[in-house]
Amino acid sequence: MAEAKAHPEEALPFERLAIIGIGLIGSSIALAARRFALARRVVLFDISDEVRREARALGLGDEIASSFAESVDGADAVIICVPVGACGAVVAEIAPHLQQNAIVTDVGSVKGAVIKAVREHLPAHARFVPAHPVAGTENSGPAAGFPSLFVNRWCILTPPNGGDEDATARVRAFWEGMGANVELMSADHHDLVLAVTSHLPHLIAYNIVGTADDLQSVTQSEVIKFSAGGFRDFTRIAASDPTMWRDVFLHNKEAVLEVLARFNEDLSALARAIRWGEGDKLFELFSRTRTIRRGIVNQGQETAEPDFGRRKV
Amino acid sequence: MAEAKAHPEEALPFERLAIIGIGLIGSSIALAARRFALARRVVLFDISDEVRREARALGLGDEIASSFAESVDGADAVIICVPVGACGAVVAEIAPHLQQNAIVTDVGSVKGAVIKAVREHLPAHARFVPAHPVAGTENSGPAAGFPSLFVNRWCILTPPNGGDEDATARVRAFWEGMGANVELMSADHHDLVLAVTSHLPHLIAYNIVGTADDLQSVTQSEVIKFSAGGFRDFTRIAASDPTMWRDVFLHNKEAVLEVLARFNEDLSALARAIRWGEGDKLFELFSRTRTIRRGIVNQGQETAEPDFGRRKV
Repeated sequence: MAEAKAHPEEALPFERLAIIGIGLIGSSIALAARRFALARRVVLFDISDEVRREARALGLGDEIASSFAESVDGADAVIICVPVGACGAVVAEIAPHLQQNAIVTDVGSVKGAVIKAVREHLPAHARFVPAHPVAGTENSGPAAGFPSLFVNRWCILTPPNGGDEDATARVRAFWEGMGANVELMSADHHDLVLAVTSHLPHLIAYNIVGTADDLQSVTQSEVIKFSAGGFRDFTRIAASDPTMWRDVFLHNKEAVLEVLARFNEDLSALARAIRWGEGDKLFELFSRTRTIRRGIVNQGQETAEPDFGRRKV
Repeated sequence: MAEAKAHPEEALPFERLAIIGIGLIGSSIALAARRFALARRVVLFDISDEVRREARALGLGDEIASSFAESVDGADAVIICVPVGACGAVVAEIAPHLQQNAIVTDVGSVKGAVIKAVREHLPAHARFVPAHPVAGTENSGPAAGFPSLFVNRWCILTPPNGGDEDATARVRAFWEGMGANVELMSADHHDLVLAVTSHLPHLIAYNIVGTADDLQSVTQSEVIKFSAGGFRDFTRIAASDPTMWRDVFLHNKEAVLEVLARFNEDLSALARAIRWGEGDKLFELFSRTRTIRRGIVNQGQETAEPDFGRRKV
């Protein structure tokens, strides 16, 4: 094609991208933005000196800024990758330095509370697109990132009615460029869906690992030895970042407690079926739950290999 | 070495081994017994015609018997690999055909109830060694087996005080020959330990998948799409064999309900901490649970790769 002027879809989603917070997600975005050529220049910042040093040593992005101001200076897009409880404070720091029309977006696992916190501090000349990539591993920190983290995962955008369509389209193009599928929904619905598919599972996993650790009648050494009976599957997500998850539960309280109440009702019924020896009820549930896994495997959200492909010998 | 007479440790653990029940465990034992040369002859039997046909087509063992009587005829060892609720009935079937001094053993996930059921039917001239390999995958049936399933997994034996030492030693040698580590404990303690490391995790996983499936406000399609947030980890063990697990819960009722009560207490405290915004309590628990996973990885009971090594791109 001879035309010099690029089609909109051939333009880079962002010119100068600032990533604030260099953990698993921030570092993965930096690596993916480079691999998939999604921004002309990538600048990263983290409030921790040590994390900035580590990011520099890892060669993340084009530049590690040394202040909030420096990181967003001249940036047309800023992605906030910090625990959800810190998003408001970060926006307060960067607000005075945001350029006209800058797109501010985030990756928080909670949307309602983050939107509220960001709005309190965001200047009118910037545009906020709330986003949440449903992807991650149990590892944290700048060295945990990898560029394919978002491939074939979903990224949920929750722009408010009447939000900036151009900003939403560019954030969508950025996530699609990293290999993600993008879906739009309301912030409230997001917070309920994620309470089910992410927050409750983490709560339950943390809880069962804590219970096992506290028991006097069964030693920690026994729990570890015999964990292949099922327990070890729970320990992966119970090894996730404590600060991130503390903030999730504190900021999505209502939805989590609502879903937890449903879980508890069902668990009481199950306990009752066990106590009264109602084998048919148990069998019915245990058969039904197989279907959901099949759906997850069929849609490429899970490996089809037995035992997560752990088998090695 | 010129001596014709083999040392005890060079002898095969079993001459003629009968495996009753050809599921994941039965087929894996047949494959492992061949690969590691642990029995002169391996005979398998299953009450299902279809399973026997499948096992024959897969070439499992040296022979697929066509009746209980035929399978144990001349066998010095019999391994019962059926759901724990069926163990008593199987022993009643084979009892009249067991040879003098035959070793009968099992693989049940519950020991107290199985020991009781087996004792009701076992003839005095046979020797019972209760056993439980803590290994498995979410797949079932004769095609699901593989010979390395037990490598570096634990097999727990729960012989009663004053049990037959020779029989216990031969069963131990058999499991060690398949690559397992063997530990001895009382049946009661086994049932409590496994309630923690296996039965409660399965119950919780089945329950959370059931709750997610039942919700009206979040569709099944949403649960599947956004399962990478944590939920999918639970679906693996919630895809396990429904008959096996129904029987486990019906036969280890007391220990499961006891451990579940502890889990519920802890979960109530956690819900309260969320409701009242007690971030420090959440952070303390979420930090502590990382240690257990580290122990499991360090002891080779889990892969160290993030996300179970699912990352593929």
